[in-house]
Amino acid sequence: VATRAGIVVTGTEVLTGRVSDRNGPWLAEQLRVFGVDVAQVVVVGDRRDDLRSALAFLAGSGVDLILTTGGLGPTADDLTAEIVAEFQGRPMALDSELEEHIAAIVARLSAGRGWRTDPEATAAATRKQAFVPDGASVLRPVGTAPGLVVPVADGHTGPAVVVLPGPPRELQGMWRAALDDRVVQAALAGRQELRQSTIRLWGTPESELAATLRENQSRLASLEITTCLRDGELEIVTRFAPAAQPAYDHLEAVLAETYADTIFSTDGQTIDDVVAEAMLARGLTIATAESCTAGLIAGRLADRPGSSAYLLGGLVTYSNQAKHDLLGVPAELIESVGAVSAEVAAAMADSARTRLGADIGIGITGIAGPGGGTADKPVGLVHLCVSNNEASLARRIRLPGNRADVRTRAVVVALHLLRELLDR
Amino acid sequence: VATRAGIVVTGTEVLTGRVSDRNGPWLAEQLRVFGVDVAQVVVVGDRRDDLRSALAFLAGSGVDLILTTGGLGPTADDLTAEIVAEFQGRPMALDSELEEHIAAIVARLSAGRGWRTDPEATAAATRKQAFVPDGASVLRPVGTAPGLVVPVADGHTGPAVVVLPGPPRELQGMWRAALDDRVVQAALAGRQELRQSTIRLWGTPESELAATLRENQSRLASLEITTCLRDGELEIVTRFAPAAQPAYDHLEAVLAETYADTIFSTDGQTIDDVVAEAMLARGLTIATAESCTAGLIAGRLADRPGSSAYLLGGLVTYSNQAKHDLLGVPAELIESVGAVSAEVAAAMADSARTRLGADIGIGITGIAGPGGGTADKPVGLVHLCVSNNEASLARRIRLPGNRADVRTRAVVVALHLLRELLDR
Repeated sequence: VATRAGIVVTGTEVLTGRVSDRNGPWLAEQLRVFGVDVAQVVVVGDRRDDLRSALAFLAGSGVDLILTTGGLGPTADDLTAEIVAEFQGRPMALDSELEEHIAAIVARLSAGRGWRTDPEATAAATRKQAFVPDGASVLRPVGTAPGLVVPVADGHTGPAVVVLPGPPRELQGMWRAALDDRVVQAALAGRQELRQSTIRLWGTPESELAATLRENQSRLASLEITTCLRDGELEIVTRFAPAAQPAYDHLEAVLAETYADTIFSTDGQTIDDVVAEAMLARGLTIATAESCTAGLIAGRLADRPGSSAYLLGGLVTYSNQAKHDLLGVPAELIESVGAVSAEVAAAMADSARTRLGADIGIGITGIAGPGGGTADKPVGLVHLCVSNNEASLARRIRLPGNRADVRTRAVVVALHLLRELLDR
Repeated sequence: VATRAGIVVTGTEVLTGRVSDRNGPWLAEQLRVFGVDVAQVVVVGDRRDDLRSALAFLAGSGVDLILTTGGLGPTADDLTAEIVAEFQGRPMALDSELEEHIAAIVARLSAGRGWRTDPEATAAATRKQAFVPDGASVLRPVGTAPGLVVPVADGHTGPAVVVLPGPPRELQGMWRAALDDRVVQAALAGRQELRQSTIRLWGTPESELAATLRENQSRLASLEITTCLRDGELEIVTRFAPAAQPAYDHLEAVLAETYADTIFSTDGQTIDDVVAEAMLARGLTIATAESCTAGLIAGRLADRPGSSAYLLGGLVTYSNQAKHDLLGVPAELIESVGAVSAEVAAAMADSARTRLGADIGIGITGIAGPGGGTADKPVGLVHLCVSNNEASLARRIRLPGNRADVRTRAVVVALHLLRELLDR
C-alpha cells in the first residue's frame, strides 16, 4: 500500500477562483518526489464548519498525513491553527518565545517598508499568530506566520496535520523543516519511491492511443497511466513503483514503435524545450511575423532564460497597413488573395527572416474571431509558414474554440511546424 | 440557509499540478451569479476509490447539488460516468442515438484535421462515450463527450450529480443546458441572490486599505470582503445579500473618497478594458516596441475582440541589432547609455509610433533575468515609455519575482502608464 497524504487548501479567494492555487500542485510534486502519493486536494473557504469537515474527510479516507495551506494570518478570518488544534484534541496556548520572535520580524518589516503602523493593532496581530496548539512543533516563520506540525492528542487517533502558510514563498521556505520534523518522518516512514515519466505526441488522436493501451492492457497493469489532450498535444504521464520499471519500458517501446512519427518527447521536455535546444545546438537564430497571435509566439520563444541566443525579434503586423509598411507585403497580394492566405503567411515568414537577418522566419496570419469570419475563411482558420533560406513548410489549419483558444493553439502549431523544419 | 453546491474536479494531471484547474473557479463564479454558494472543491486523481469517496464526502456534507468535471474521455482512465452511475444507484446503458451523434462528430473532426484514424479504435472510443447512467439526462456534446445530469435512483437519497467534461471550452459550452435541466432547477429552487462587486486600485499598499477597513468595521459587518494583491493591482471583492446593499454603498463611498487617486475600476472592469474603451471612445491607435516582454504587451492588447480598431502592430526588438535595424535606435545611444535605459525606452516608443503611423507608442526595455543583471542594472529593472505626438510618460521600475513575474508585471505597469496618458 502506498503512503498517502491529503491536502486542505483554505481561502475564499481560492475557492471562488480569484486566486489560483499554487500550493496544492507544488506540495503534490514535492511529496511525489519524496515517495508519497497525494490522494485528494480539498479547497474550502474561510469557514469553520467547512474546514472541519475537510479534515474529517481526509482523516476518514485513511491518509497517513494531512497538510493544510493558508489561514494563518493575523485577521479574524484566519482560522486554521485553531480548527486543527480542536480537531487533534489539543488546546491552544500562547508561545511567548514565538510571540517575541514574530514581534521582531514585524518590527523589521515595518521599518524596511516605511509603513505607518498602529502599535496596539500590531501587538494584537502578533499575539494571535503566537497562539499554537499545545504539544505542536513550531516551524520557524519565513514571513510572519509560523508553520505547525500537530500530532493527535493522547486518546485520539488519526493522522498528524502539518499546518503551512498560504503565500507560496513562505510555504516553500519552510518545507524542508516540515519534512525533517520527527512526527512527519514517522508518519511517512513506509514510503516507497514513485517514478513518473512523461511522453508527448503531436498528431495522434486520443482514441488511437486508447486502442493501443487496451491491446497491451495485460502487460501494463502495474502502471498508472493518464492521458491528457492539451492544446492539441497528447500527453501520457505514467506513475509507477520501481518494481514496475520493466512494464514501463515495455510501454515506452510500444509507443515508440507505434507512434514513431508523432512522438516528440519521451523525457518530459515540452515543445518549447525541444525547439529551443535544437536551435541552440545548431546556433540558429529566429525572427517572427505575427498577425492574429500578435506577439504571442515571440513572447513564448522568449519565455526561456537565455533565449536571446536564438530569438532576434519580430514584427506584429496586425493591420494590413503594417503588413505592408513593416514587412513589405505588397498591397496587391493582400488584395488578391486576402491577408489570411498561404501566400501572405509565406511572405511574412520570409520578410521577418530577411529584415532581422535571422536563419529562420515564422509567419502567422489567421482569423481569431469572434468576428471577421466568412464562409470561405471561417473563424479559426490560420495560415502558418516557417522558412529558412532553403526550404519552407506551410500549414493551413482550422482551429476550434474561442478567440483565446485559437490564438494559443496557433502558437503551438507554429512551434511544431518549427520543430519539423529543424528535424529535416 | 444558503443553497450550496460541491464540485469534484477529476484528473491526475490536475491533482499533480501538471494542469491547473480552470473549471472549479469558473463553475464557482457561474454558480454564485446564479445564487448558489460553492462549499468545497475536491480534486481527485483518476482512481475509482478516490472519486467515490469525494462524492460521498460532498453528499454527506449536505450540498444541494454536486458537479463533476473531467474523466469523460475515451480512455480507460476516464471513469466518471461509471462511478457516478454506481453512486446514484443506476446501471450504465448504451444510448444508441448518442452513439450515432458522437460518431458523426468524430468523423467530421477527423476529416477537418486530416488525421489518419483506425475505424475500429474510433468505434470503440465512440461506444464507450455513449454509455450513460440509465435515467440520466444527456447534455449534447460540445466536443465528443456528452454531459450528464444524474438524479439518485428511487430508494436512494442524496443530491443530483451534474457530470461535465474537462476541457473548459466543452464544459462552458454546455453550462446553459445544464442550468436549464429540470432536475438541476429543482435542486437549486431555494437559491437567493448573492451580489458581488469588485473595486480595483493601483498604487495603494494593502496595509493602508486594511486600516481603512478596520476603521469602518462596524458599518461593514454584513459584507464579505476579500482583498487580493495581484500583479501590483489591489483587488477588493465584496459579496453580500441584497439587504446589505446600503453597507456596500457606504464601503464604495469611503473607498472613492480615500483612494480617489488610485481607484481605476469600480465596476469590475480590468485595466485592459479601461484602456481599450478609452482608445475606442477617442478613435486612437497604438503601436508597441518591446524588448524584455518580447510581444506580450502587443499580444495582450490584441486579447479583446475588435482590437484591430486600435492596435496597428508592433516591433519585438529583442537583440540590440533589431533595435537598430527595425526601430532606428542609434547604436551609439545603446552603447553610451545601455539598451535598458530611459533614453532607449523613449526612442522605442517614438519609433513604434512613427513607423506604424499610430497615435500612441509604447516602449519597454528591461532585464527579465535570471542572468544579465549588474549592480547598476539589476534583474527586474525595467524602463517604460508611453508617448503621443505631444507628451510622453516614462517610468523606471524595479520588479520583484522570477523571469515570468517580471515580464508579466512589466506589461501591467505599461497598461497603467498608458491609462495615465489617456486620462490627461
